[in-house]
Amino acid sequence: MHPVIEWKDGTVVMLDQRLLPSEKKFIIHRGHLEVAGSIKDMVIRGAPAIGIAAAYGIALGVAELRDNPGLNTPGFLQSRFKAIVNAITATRPTAINLFWAAARMEKIFRENKQDYHLLREKLIAAAIALDKEDFEVNRRIGANGQTLLKNDSTVLTHCNAGALATAGYGTALGVIRAAVANGKTIRVMAGETRPYLQGARLTVWELQEDGIPVTLITDSMAGHVMKKGMIQAVIVGADRIAANGDTANKIGTYSLAILARHHGLPFYVAAPLSTIDADTPSGDTIPIEERDAAEVIYFQGRMTARPHTAVFNPAFDVTPAGLITAIITEEKVLVPDFSRAIASLPGLRQK
Amino acid sequence: MHPVIEWKDGTVVMLDQRLLPSEKKFIIHRGHLEVAGSIKDMVIRGAPAIGIAAAYGIALGVAELRDNPGLNTPGFLQSRFKAIVNAITATRPTAINLFWAAARMEKIFRENKQDYHLLREKLIAAAIALDKEDFEVNRRIGANGQTLLKNDSTVLTHCNAGALATAGYGTALGVIRAAVANGKTIRVMAGETRPYLQGARLTVWELQEDGIPVTLITDSMAGHVMKKGMIQAVIVGADRIAANGDTANKIGTYSLAILARHHGLPFYVAAPLSTIDADTPSGDTIPIEERDAAEVIYFQGRMTARPHTAVFNPAFDVTPAGLITAIITEEKVLVPDFSRAIASLPGLRQK
Repeated sequence: MHPVIEWKDGTVVMLDQRLLPSEKKFIIHRGHLEVAGSIKDMVIRGAPAIGIAAAYGIALGVAELRDNPGLNTPGFLQSRFKAIVNAITATRPTAINLFWAAARMEKIFRENKQDYHLLREKLIAAAIALDKEDFEVNRRIGANGQTLLKNDSTVLTHCNAGALATAGYGTALGVIRAAVANGKTIRVMAGETRPYLQGARLTVWELQEDGIPVTLITDSMAGHVMKKGMIQAVIVGADRIAANGDTANKIGTYSLAILARHHGLPFYVAAPLSTIDADTPSGDTIPIEERDAAEVIYFQGRMTARPHTAVFNPAFDVTPAGLITAIITEEKVLVPDFSRAIASLPGLRQK
Repeated sequence: MHPVIEWKDGTVVMLDQRLLPSEKKFIIHRGHLEVAGSIKDMVIRGAPAIGIAAAYGIALGVAELRDNPGLNTPGFLQSRFKAIVNAITATRPTAINLFWAAARMEKIFRENKQDYHLLREKLIAAAIALDKEDFEVNRRIGANGQTLLKNDSTVLTHCNAGALATAGYGTALGVIRAAVANGKTIRVMAGETRPYLQGARLTVWELQEDGIPVTLITDSMAGHVMKKGMIQAVIVGADRIAANGDTANKIGTYSLAILARHHGLPFYVAAPLSTIDADTPSGDTIPIEERDAAEVIYFQGRMTARPHTAVFNPAFDVTPAGLITAIITEEKVLVPDFSRAIASLPGLRQK
């Protein structure tokens, strides 16, 4: 599969995920404000992919200054860099990978800000490295997580935590891919994930491309299929995991966790260490983005309710750690007590 | 509000609910096969309204024979009547009101089959009476149920169990209307109800028409809004209630019942006695209609997943009696033990 995001000839190229599966179109970004716009408008989405886009966007913002005479003015680069980071991070509040990637780029800035040309190359190289690293991280998440999936089982997933949400391979879908690669027969049931339909449009599409059997359901059918014995495990990605294991993920995840618990099914979260936010003690303090009413009222221009309809459209919800069976990271599979498991992660201190 | 279905000048007139809220169009049915088609294609939906449509459809089928020379042949009317009833009842398997209404019409047939002209008038009168009766039944359900709703509360509902699903006023929405009429401040949160969006298209529309505050959410948000303390009760309609209280209703109802239980919220079912099927011992034997994949893959012609995508599209699910706080009928509010409560209903024996 073509990468969903790529640094190419001084531009950032993104697959426009809003048009899938109807159309496969790439957008070329020549400035960091365009990248910020594409993050906000969900051209690219998924916490790891947002992190990668942020890194490329910041590198692009600095590269844009190439011919700027202000570079000779003391303090100019510092203030411009701050503005670039602000523009990129002001796009979406929930996915911690956005802020994690920005922090990594800020470190490169601090270490190299004396030499603009060196800084520019270092930032570009750091963004490309972060991108490549995410792919490897996904492979390791897959390898660690696939041991949890039983042969000849059906796994329910929500939203898209796949190749399209990452540098490739995916977190939740990476676990499924790794299980299939290990010779297991795995069927996927994908919740369509209203309002943005990432499940229908993206997860179904990428699993079909890989030849992994997938059946589409509406989000409301989850309880019914569990009761019918059609599901053996639930696996989702994450946008931010608090220090106690509480997990913010696409709206609907919390409902699925309750339904899984009611039916005695394991509920797995698959995410890189970069999604764990040790500075957020619990899910109560994770900011939840609310998006425009139009996402619910319109579907590709077709009206589902009258335009003035009052809508509540939170993009994420928080699943308490107590409903999570295991959190699958590239380092290891974390099991309760998550507070202790997260505190003892060696990888976290390297952030 | 104009009735959703009406007998008019020897035809059956229905509001085409598939086009709401974009368009308000009425379809005139001149034959019972057209009525059967409209039930199957969901021009009209909602268990009580399906029952009314069935009664009118059967009356129309007999009226169609008006100039048929076969009426002079022994056995002709009997065999034609059977075919008419079969055509009407072969449309949708889950809503018991369809079969209940057909049984009422069959009783009229048995009592009046000797005289075609009398039979025809009796069947038309019976269908009109059933329609009027449903409206009165809804008012009584509302009066009984409104005592359960607290002042200044928000009620979550699913699908449309409103005026559009009945002769008028509604079952679940009738309870809300009665509470509002009694001076209570009630806000409604409506799940959009994928795939057919009856919540977004119909419930939001009819509550807006009545000036009752309503906020639209996607079905996946139910757990989140409950956790946030935004919901004080859940109320839904029913398509069939088994003798033990197990309740078939629009897909997604079962998930809501589990979520309500998890959050300690009351979960109410509002339905007429005609929805209780004393001959079905439990929910396990209620037939669940599966509808076309296209309902999930397309929304008004716009694609959500590729056309060949595998889809599971059950139209209903079954909520076990154990998850139901009370069943609100026109006779009384039933509370557990539902088996005993249903068995002792005087109204049921009059079916």
